[in-house]
Amino acid sequence: MTQPRRDFLAQAAAIAAVPLGLDPLFRAVRGAPPLRADGAWVNAALARFSDVGRTPSGINRVAYSDADLAGRAFTLDLFRDAGLTPRIDAAGNIVARVPGRDARLPAIVIGSHVDSVTDGGNFDGPVGTFGAIGAARALLAQRVPLRHPLDVVCWQNEEGGTIGSKLAVGEPVDLDGVARSGRTVREGIGRIGGDVSRLAEAVRPAGSVACYLELHIEQGGTLDRSGTPIGVVLGIVGLKWFEVTIEGFANHAGATPMDQRQDAVLAAAKFTVAVNDAIRSEPGRQVATVGRVVASPNTRNVIAGQVQLTVDLRDLDAAKVARFATRFEQLGREIGAATSTTFTFREATSSRPAMADPRVMGWIESSAGALGLSTQRLPSGAGHDAQEMAQRGPMGMIFIPSVGGISHSPREFSRPQDVANGVDVLLNTIVAADRALDA
Amino acid sequence: MTQPRRDFLAQAAAIAAVPLGLDPLFRAVRGAPPLRADGAWVNAALARFSDVGRTPSGINRVAYSDADLAGRAFTLDLFRDAGLTPRIDAAGNIVARVPGRDARLPAIVIGSHVDSVTDGGNFDGPVGTFGAIGAARALLAQRVPLRHPLDVVCWQNEEGGTIGSKLAVGEPVDLDGVARSGRTVREGIGRIGGDVSRLAEAVRPAGSVACYLELHIEQGGTLDRSGTPIGVVLGIVGLKWFEVTIEGFANHAGATPMDQRQDAVLAAAKFTVAVNDAIRSEPGRQVATVGRVVASPNTRNVIAGQVQLTVDLRDLDAAKVARFATRFEQLGREIGAATSTTFTFREATSSRPAMADPRVMGWIESSAGALGLSTQRLPSGAGHDAQEMAQRGPMGMIFIPSVGGISHSPREFSRPQDVANGVDVLLNTIVAADRALDA
Repeated sequence: MTQPRRDFLAQAAAIAAVPLGLDPLFRAVRGAPPLRADGAWVNAALARFSDVGRTPSGINRVAYSDADLAGRAFTLDLFRDAGLTPRIDAAGNIVARVPGRDARLPAIVIGSHVDSVTDGGNFDGPVGTFGAIGAARALLAQRVPLRHPLDVVCWQNEEGGTIGSKLAVGEPVDLDGVARSGRTVREGIGRIGGDVSRLAEAVRPAGSVACYLELHIEQGGTLDRSGTPIGVVLGIVGLKWFEVTIEGFANHAGATPMDQRQDAVLAAAKFTVAVNDAIRSEPGRQVATVGRVVASPNTRNVIAGQVQLTVDLRDLDAAKVARFATRFEQLGREIGAATSTTFTFREATSSRPAMADPRVMGWIESSAGALGLSTQRLPSGAGHDAQEMAQRGPMGMIFIPSVGGISHSPREFSRPQDVANGVDVLLNTIVAADRALDA
Repeated sequence: MTQPRRDFLAQAAAIAAVPLGLDPLFRAVRGAPPLRADGAWVNAALARFSDVGRTPSGINRVAYSDADLAGRAFTLDLFRDAGLTPRIDAAGNIVARVPGRDARLPAIVIGSHVDSVTDGGNFDGPVGTFGAIGAARALLAQRVPLRHPLDVVCWQNEEGGTIGSKLAVGEPVDLDGVARSGRTVREGIGRIGGDVSRLAEAVRPAGSVACYLELHIEQGGTLDRSGTPIGVVLGIVGLKWFEVTIEGFANHAGATPMDQRQDAVLAAAKFTVAVNDAIRSEPGRQVATVGRVVASPNTRNVIAGQVQLTVDLRDLDAAKVARFATRFEQLGREIGAATSTTFTFREATSSRPAMADPRVMGWIESSAGALGLSTQRLPSGAGHDAQEMAQRGPMGMIFIPSVGGISHSPREFSRPQDVANGVDVLLNTIVAADRALDA
């Protein structure tokens, strides 16, 4: 801890106009009151933003839509209002850099997204994006110097598969994939001001990121139920998505005796129950979901000849994910044999868990502690841009409660005090990271 | 048995041109070889008919379509080729009457249908229609006189809910209901040569039907598995169709802990398994099927907030159907309570069982016996025009095997020998009924 303090003193001394004793960073470091951002400013921006892309069925700022463009224009204005100078990189991400004292140091990157799912809410994404802008605004307004450059980012198309952050770390992206707006990613990037011919320029090379911090709503309801204002993310779960095809034999629902059926709907039901029983059979936070079921011919008086269903399997432990994947395939074989149907599994997607950095988790906890806010460590069951950025440097995420754990819904809501708390924790974590990293 | 024999002798004597000793009916009655129809003629018609309405995915003679009209034109020609004089009644049914010796007696009615389901086969319907025409042709060709008038019928739109036979017994029909062809029943009746302004003329009044006989393929595979050439239908099962709505709560598949879910797909799966377990928990031929499942939002990474599914419940015993219906609703309540979801049941359709007449069953069995064909009594799990006609007089159905029990499929197939057997049994049952009824 001595090295960071020496560094801070050198940094603080450089701000000639600010009396040393009043420097907010100085006070934070000394155990004095922590920094505070302007939570009201962030909440006011969120309130205004809730009109952008609102439809009777919810917020619809799906990537590359007119509403997404309107949301990005709003966000660009907010960057400028905070005293930042945003640009749009070749991948279509909005980035504003606050120079640090040492231009040779890698950047601390903070941000989130403003695109939404179909019929979504106003908090998933905007809380973290506006919170990052609000934290940078506080640093500028309170003239808190950082050693590292600070990049404030609004990632494009998070909900379509963390597209902007994938491009920022050089992960492969299907440019011809069709986004929820009906436009391809390629068309979308052009539409939002990017340039697919220059995507390489948007890639952050290894060593260029000091750390990545993201503020977000917690989508599982854990914080809301326990009444904990700040969640410290342990990591973002790895997942496997399976597409399971069950082949039975379509036949007459009235004429076919019960013991002569090859009923794909019944087999799918037994499998769904078995997957649920298996995933709950041991302690832990692992989850498995059958979310999509399509029967054929899907007619009331015909025994279904085929069902296609999906399994979404997630855990923070990659070995556990692999073990359950094997178990589910075994269950499919057993149920297929018992119901005279055949199960075919296709792994549609797989991602490894992205662990948060223990040092970053510590800075979040000490920042929250200084603010008088209790914390709870928990995994993120949802994916975030942080999972991509974790490839480039230490990653940490700050969660705030979402009332009832509701997200991806027009009923998504986070209380203004929780939003303000989150921005304050982000602000102090930036400062703590800046002090400790590369020291 | 004396009365029928006296009646027969009087009848046989009336056929002056036929030497008594060679009269086929005489021989049948005396225990001599039974009547034989021209099975090859029926099978040849079926073979030609398989080109009508054939598409790459199966036979598509759905009611009121161009292919249905072509099928009816083919059938009209077949009536004429058999020496019959068909007319189209106001309901659109094709009817040809063979006068009986006693014009005061009610008619023996035989027939089936030629419309198909979507992507169906060539045997469900045509076997019984062409078989009835073939039996009448044999009676005419072999100059076998009947006491009763004989009506040979091709019912319209059986697959859309026994529309033609419902109209023939004065059952309510939704004329504005849309058939598979996309046309309303009202439009369809006009298209096939009926007249909706004169539907009352198509109603057969009480007392006007001596009995109804229908030959059909057996759609459950029971005869095919047991190697029995002739099925004697005990009755047509009653059914209840339920539409069940399960309300849960849509939420994030990754972020929502397993113990915090209100998963409508899981609840639907547990219900489907429970319905299957319940229906199989006691002996009998009762069946229950969940054939249609529609989840919402039906997305792989969202816990389903709602499922709509159907239950098709059938048995020959109306009390058993009612008892299982109550049991299923109770299972829904229990599973709803256990999964934090709510089940709502709506009874979409209900029909009472239609029992075959024991005397008719006996005539079918004795006819088969005389032909050297073994029989098996079994319920019909599928609906047929016979269920409507049973309201007007004694009803009986003759089943022949469908290979593998496959129906409503392009793979539907009945062997020519089985078709010929069925026509022969129908022919002799007509004669036996004519002899015994109103005697």
